[in-house]
Amino acid sequence: MIPTLEWTPEGVRFLDQTKLPLEETYVLATDYQQVAIVIRDMIVRGAMAIGVSAAMGVALGIDRSTATTIPELTTEVDEVCRTLAETRPTAVNLFWGIAQVRNLYTSLAARDTPIPEIKAQCIALAQQLYDEDIANLKILGANGAALLPDEATVLTHCNAGALAACGYGSALGVIRAAVEAGKKIDVFADETRPFNQGARLTAWELVHDGIPTTLICDNMAGYFMSKGRIQAVIVGADRIAANGDAANKIGTYSVAILAKEHGVPFYVAAPFNTIDPDTAHGDMIPIEQRAATEVTHFQGKQVTPDGVRIENPAFDVTPAKYIAGIITERGVLRAPYTESIAAAAQL
Amino acid sequence: MIPTLEWTPEGVRFLDQTKLPLEETYVLATDYQQVAIVIRDMIVRGAMAIGVSAAMGVALGIDRSTATTIPELTTEVDEVCRTLAETRPTAVNLFWGIAQVRNLYTSLAARDTPIPEIKAQCIALAQQLYDEDIANLKILGANGAALLPDEATVLTHCNAGALAACGYGSALGVIRAAVEAGKKIDVFADETRPFNQGARLTAWELVHDGIPTTLICDNMAGYFMSKGRIQAVIVGADRIAANGDAANKIGTYSVAILAKEHGVPFYVAAPFNTIDPDTAHGDMIPIEQRAATEVTHFQGKQVTPDGVRIENPAFDVTPAKYIAGIITERGVLRAPYTESIAAAAQL
Repeated sequence: MIPTLEWTPEGVRFLDQTKLPLEETYVLATDYQQVAIVIRDMIVRGAMAIGVSAAMGVALGIDRSTATTIPELTTEVDEVCRTLAETRPTAVNLFWGIAQVRNLYTSLAARDTPIPEIKAQCIALAQQLYDEDIANLKILGANGAALLPDEATVLTHCNAGALAACGYGSALGVIRAAVEAGKKIDVFADETRPFNQGARLTAWELVHDGIPTTLICDNMAGYFMSKGRIQAVIVGADRIAANGDAANKIGTYSVAILAKEHGVPFYVAAPFNTIDPDTAHGDMIPIEQRAATEVTHFQGKQVTPDGVRIENPAFDVTPAKYIAGIITERGVLRAPYTESIAAAAQL
Repeated sequence: MIPTLEWTPEGVRFLDQTKLPLEETYVLATDYQQVAIVIRDMIVRGAMAIGVSAAMGVALGIDRSTATTIPELTTEVDEVCRTLAETRPTAVNLFWGIAQVRNLYTSLAARDTPIPEIKAQCIALAQQLYDEDIANLKILGANGAALLPDEATVLTHCNAGALAACGYGSALGVIRAAVEAGKKIDVFADETRPFNQGARLTAWELVHDGIPTTLICDNMAGYFMSKGRIQAVIVGADRIAANGDAANKIGTYSVAILAKEHGVPFYVAAPFNTIDPDTAHGDMIPIEQRAATEVTHFQGKQVTPDGVRIENPAFDVTPAKYIAGIITERGVLRAPYTESIAAAAQL
C-alpha cells in the first residue's frame, strides 16, 4: 500500500506529494503547525487524506502539549483547531477531522480525565479514523464497481486515489475494486492543471498498481468522448452539499457537462463524511483561490509574460443534475439527492 | 507590428515562438528544408502564418535552385512542395500556400518563362500573400467587431492572433478591431496545453498591445462561464469543412460545448482560405498526433511517471451546430453553412 500518511511516535509522516512522480520522499511533521503547513502547501492533499491529517494534527497538538491543567490544555486545543481549520477552505473533511478529535477532547475534558489518558485516547481516535477511511473506501469501491461494465475505459479528473486518502482511494478505489472483480478497466487521467495531480499522482499510482493508464491534457476529454473512447467518468469530491451539488478540483464541472453532452455517466465517489448537511447547496461552498504562481511558474521557472492577470480557483461545483450517482460506503445515492442523502444519513 | 515572419534577401526570418514569452529571438531559414523544420517544430505556427510560410518556403526553394532548365527546376519544385506538405497535416492553409506559388510556377514554366523571371515572380507572389493576409484580417476584424457588445469579456483558446498570422490575427483581430472601435473588451485566454500557446503567445501579444488579459487553465473556462464572466467565445481555425465543421487546437470542441451549455455565443474567426471546399465535413479532416514528449516533459524535464501512455492529438473538430457564426473577410457566415459558404465562395 502507498504510505500516504502515518502516525509515528516522532510525529505524522507524510509522503511528499509535491515531489511525485519522480521522487518518493517523506516529510515528518513533529508539531501541529507543521501539519498545517503540510496541508496548506499540498504536501498532503485530497479530501479524505486532509480529513485524517487534520485529525492527526489535533491529536499531535494535544500530545505535544506541556499543559498541566485542563483549562490550559483547552486553550491550546482551541488554537490548534483554529490553525488547522485555516489551511484549506473547500474540503469539508478538514473540518470533520478536526471536529472528531476535538469533540472527543471536549467530552474527556468535561469529565476531568487525566491528561495522559486524554492524549492516549485522542491519538487512538486519529489512528482509528485512518483505519476507518481505508475500510470505508473498500466498501465504497465495491459499491461503485458494480456500476461499471465488464470492459470499460473510465475518465477521472485530479487524484481521488490512494494518495488522496489513507489508502485505496474513492474514484480510483472504484476502479481498483472493478479490476479486483475481474473487470477489464483502463483509465484516462486528466493532467489536471495547474497542480498536475493527474499527471503526477493518478498516473503514478495507477502505473504503480499495473492498471493501464493514458494521460491526456484536460482539454482533450471532449475529443475522446466524441470518439466513443470513454464509457464512464468517476471523480472524487471535496464537499457535497445536502442537495447533491459536489465541489471537486477545478475542471470537474466542465467534464460533467462534456459527459452529459456525450451521454456518458458521470459519477462522484466520496465517503459519506464528504457530504455536509450544513451546506444546503453548491453556491454555499467556499472556493479556495490559490496563488497565481501555480499558473505562472513551473518548477520555479516563469512561463508566462509579465503583466498578465491570473485567476486560480482550485475547485468548482458540479450541480447535482449532472451527477448520475454518488458512490459512498453507504451505497450508491441517486437523484433526487436531497432525499437519498437524508435517507443514507439515517443508516 | 509583431514581426512573425518576413521575407529577406538572406532567407525567411521567423520570430521563434517556442521561446516566447520570455525571449524574443529570431530564426533565419536559408533554404526550404529549414522552412519545413520551422513549421514542423512550431517555431512558426497558426493556420495563416503556416500558409504564408509555406508559400515563402516554395519561393525560397525556387529562388535557391541552381537548375538551369525548366524540367530540372520542375523536379526540384516537386520535391520542395512534397517536403513542405509533410510538415503538418491539419491546417489547410499549408496546402493552400504551397498551391498558390506552385500554380504560378506551373503556369510560368508552361510558357517557358526565363528562370530568373520565374524566381522573381514567385518571390513577389509570396510577399503579396503576406500583405493580403494582413489586409484580409483587418476586414475580418471589423466584420467580427460588430458582433461584440460595447462591453464584453471574450474567451479565446490557443493563439489566433498576430503571431498566428502575418500580423493582426483572426480571433484576436476581432478583439483588436473592437477595441479600436472604442468597445471595452477584455480577454480570458485559455492556457492551451500542452504547447501553452495561450499562456505564452496570446497573453504576450495582448499584454504587448495593452489589452487587459486574464490567463486561466483550460479546465477553468466552464467555471467562469457559469459565473457569467464570459460574454463571447472567439477562436481561430486550421481548416473549415464545406459544411462549417471547424478544426482548431485541441480543446476548442470542449469550449464550444461549454459555451452552448451556458448560452454564450461561440464564433470561429478565419480567413476565407481556411475553408476547404474539398473537405465535405469534419470527419474528413486529418488530426495531427504530436509527440508524447510535449505532454510528458516540460522544458526538457520529465514531469510524468514512466510507464504511462500518452495521447496527444493536436486538434479537434467542432461541429457546425455549435458555431454561432464564422467570421471571414467576406462577411460573417451563418448556418446553414453549406449554403452560406457556397454563396461566399462566389464573392
